[in-house]
Amino acid sequence: MSALPERAAQRHALAAALGDGWLDGDACEPYATDAARYGGTALGVARPASTAKTSMLARVAAAHRIALVAQGARSGLVGAAIPDRSGTQCVVSFDRMRAIRAFDAANRSITVEAGVRLSEINRTAGEAGLCLPIDLGSDPAAGGLVGANAGGSRLIKYGDVRRNVLGLEIVLADAAGTVIDALAPLRKRNAGFDVAHCFIGANGANGLVTAVSFALAAIERSSCAVFVAFASYDAALAGLLAFERAFGELLSAFEFMSATAVRCVAAACPDLRIPGSTDAAACHALVEIATGMPGLDALLEARALETLEALAGERVVLDAACGAAERFWRIRDALPVAVAQEGIPLSFDVSFPRGALAAFVTGAEQWLADAHPSLRCHAFGHFGDGGCHLVVSIPHDQAQRYGPLQQVALRGALYERVVRAGGCFSAEHGIGPVNVAYYRKHVPAAQRQLAGAVQHAIDPLGLIGRVRY
Amino acid sequence: MSALPERAAQRHALAAALGDGWLDGDACEPYATDAARYGGTALGVARPASTAKTSMLARVAAAHRIALVAQGARSGLVGAAIPDRSGTQCVVSFDRMRAIRAFDAANRSITVEAGVRLSEINRTAGEAGLCLPIDLGSDPAAGGLVGANAGGSRLIKYGDVRRNVLGLEIVLADAAGTVIDALAPLRKRNAGFDVAHCFIGANGANGLVTAVSFALAAIERSSCAVFVAFASYDAALAGLLAFERAFGELLSAFEFMSATAVRCVAAACPDLRIPGSTDAAACHALVEIATGMPGLDALLEARALETLEALAGERVVLDAACGAAERFWRIRDALPVAVAQEGIPLSFDVSFPRGALAAFVTGAEQWLADAHPSLRCHAFGHFGDGGCHLVVSIPHDQAQRYGPLQQVALRGALYERVVRAGGCFSAEHGIGPVNVAYYRKHVPAAQRQLAGAVQHAIDPLGLIGRVRY
Repeated sequence: MSALPERAAQRHALAAALGDGWLDGDACEPYATDAARYGGTALGVARPASTAKTSMLARVAAAHRIALVAQGARSGLVGAAIPDRSGTQCVVSFDRMRAIRAFDAANRSITVEAGVRLSEINRTAGEAGLCLPIDLGSDPAAGGLVGANAGGSRLIKYGDVRRNVLGLEIVLADAAGTVIDALAPLRKRNAGFDVAHCFIGANGANGLVTAVSFALAAIERSSCAVFVAFASYDAALAGLLAFERAFGELLSAFEFMSATAVRCVAAACPDLRIPGSTDAAACHALVEIATGMPGLDALLEARALETLEALAGERVVLDAACGAAERFWRIRDALPVAVAQEGIPLSFDVSFPRGALAAFVTGAEQWLADAHPSLRCHAFGHFGDGGCHLVVSIPHDQAQRYGPLQQVALRGALYERVVRAGGCFSAEHGIGPVNVAYYRKHVPAAQRQLAGAVQHAIDPLGLIGRVRY
Repeated sequence: MSALPERAAQRHALAAALGDGWLDGDACEPYATDAARYGGTALGVARPASTAKTSMLARVAAAHRIALVAQGARSGLVGAAIPDRSGTQCVVSFDRMRAIRAFDAANRSITVEAGVRLSEINRTAGEAGLCLPIDLGSDPAAGGLVGANAGGSRLIKYGDVRRNVLGLEIVLADAAGTVIDALAPLRKRNAGFDVAHCFIGANGANGLVTAVSFALAAIERSSCAVFVAFASYDAALAGLLAFERAFGELLSAFEFMSATAVRCVAAACPDLRIPGSTDAAACHALVEIATGMPGLDALLEARALETLEALAGERVVLDAACGAAERFWRIRDALPVAVAQEGIPLSFDVSFPRGALAAFVTGAEQWLADAHPSLRCHAFGHFGDGGCHLVVSIPHDQAQRYGPLQQVALRGALYERVVRAGGCFSAEHGIGPVNVAYYRKHVPAAQRQLAGAVQHAIDPLGLIGRVRY
């Protein structure tokens, strides 16, 4: 009971440091749940309007030992930006830090505050024919992009967020509320090891990211898309390699979808015509070729058709259609929702060396068919970069048989298979309260101890973020 | 005097841990000097043949508090891989760790031990049409590539080493000789923040990098090169932007050379015909367009000529020649040696936002002409990524007037100009004993303290590398 006056004092100190932008009580509710419907209860919500105010807040947090949880657009999937249920953690929302501090078209860079959305970055960059080439289904804030080290569907060509960050501004939770200004938008800067990387992919731990400098790329000016049916995952891998030989770095996406997943979309969305579908297909792929060089559409399409003809001749490709990319992406984008609606979805976000991905999916499908014949398994995702979303669907009439305990056992067994195949149990979504137990299980102790030591060095009071590494 | 028996005991312990591969006395000499002729004296040289032996060595070093200096091909330019003159530091040479542990063409990745040279990586990868696209004048070992976070001439297209590393294996200097195995060649792995980045660009500090997994790219199959004369640096920037608009990500190099630097090459190498040279040029650029997509040579050349014609019409380009890339690269590659021979060279390796690079070079040339009219100034480097090598040449007859003290003053004054222009005093070469004083001066205290805290967390005994951050 003695916690209540202490919390009131903490709220008072934080609100006073902030000046304005403090939320309390019911007003906190919208800030307590994320896209994955992971929810908690906040001590309060601080909405700083500037880096200076964030620094003041961090000083008070350090003095009063108040835990801080940084939050952007709440589009995360692992609960890393959401307070726990204790009511002791203060959310630091960056939804008022929305300034574009600098857009330098000549340098192909943009510097934005943590709350600026990906779509806003692209709106500004687009005026000069540029973009931040992170292709996601959601619209995160800059700070969330950095915290999650987001990847997406064009990673094969452009890399993840880490590969597009030029600099960061960070506030530490220490007595001074130290501000690290490493924002300069330089492509070459080898002046000591780059501490900014301790905050990229840290899922909100270590420090508060208040601003980010990104490198920008040219908007794609020529492109071509095909939708391909393969007889097996090995054939899909052969197809990927053939497209890479034909197009080099112009290959911008190679998204695969298991035949069961595509059938599921076809049933759920009858208006989406699936091109070139055949009963013999084990999987399909959306292949996109794109470049910032204008005027190549016809050449790319001709080369794609040549590549497909050769693959059909070798019986690698069963069938294929060439067409507007948007039409094919609608199928791909409808897929996660369609498969989730089919039953109770158990979702996995895993990655592999590309050769091992094919073997894993085949093996997992077979294992599930043998050991759990009433369950369905849908695989889809980023074949080109080894990323794989797997959804095990529990039919509603099997809900009793596959209750929470059985689900945990199934999840554990599948992760074991992932790790044995040389893969990673967390490809894109990152680590948060939802999956930190698997981090402890599958990341070697030496690596976790090193991460923990670095975290302790940066945030010795252990106040920032939801994950203790 | 009491140090001598202690050193003998240290040598004995290290040699015993290693089993074989220990060098002592005169045999150490080849390991004591680097490419920049920075030299020291080693306690001894340990040449481990495996990660396990490196771990044994690190345990002994921790137990006896022996400083370790990791060394690859000695191609560094800042003394970071060379022992100091105290005779207390043990060199750990990776010249026996030369195994290619895995080459996975389907995954476009290669895993190599720290001593494998860049050229060896490219020989193996080349058999499958792949390469590690780090384009350097030297041939470093994998560990050195990582320690220096090498950049090079194609950074504009492929990024630096950091952007091409998939994983590391690291040995820590602690009581256990802990081995961190984060080598899995995965393109998506968001399982906590990536501690590997604490070793990339760390100039040999923090831990001993024993193996590296790199992502590989397609070897270029189509290309085109032009050599262009510009009336000003602003015109060169306009030219860069025009080529980026015309070619998008296919632009693979935009290397600039000041007119004085090109004249210096012409004088030193009369057999190298400088194409399209004009007296009115302020600078020249080697522009290279390249792609892994085959069969585009003619199309790229036609597009380059169109682009140049438009720029000539706007008087941005004074003159240009299209031709074999190797011929133009010979001019670019001859340049550092030619300008260094002209007098006593003071070399700078700096970087800027691209717009600021043009202004800086113009300003620096003007300032030197006014304040130091007897000195010559040559600028060249990587305009496309904001990198700039500046060589201030002291004529031999001015050697007395510009002695060591004056050189230090000149260096300090130029770095001040760099920092005022928003640039970085160390673009590519990294930090070592040669330039650590400028690190202390120009990197903000908060950032250095953070780097120091992280270094202390990873290497609490302070045994590894030449730089205390």
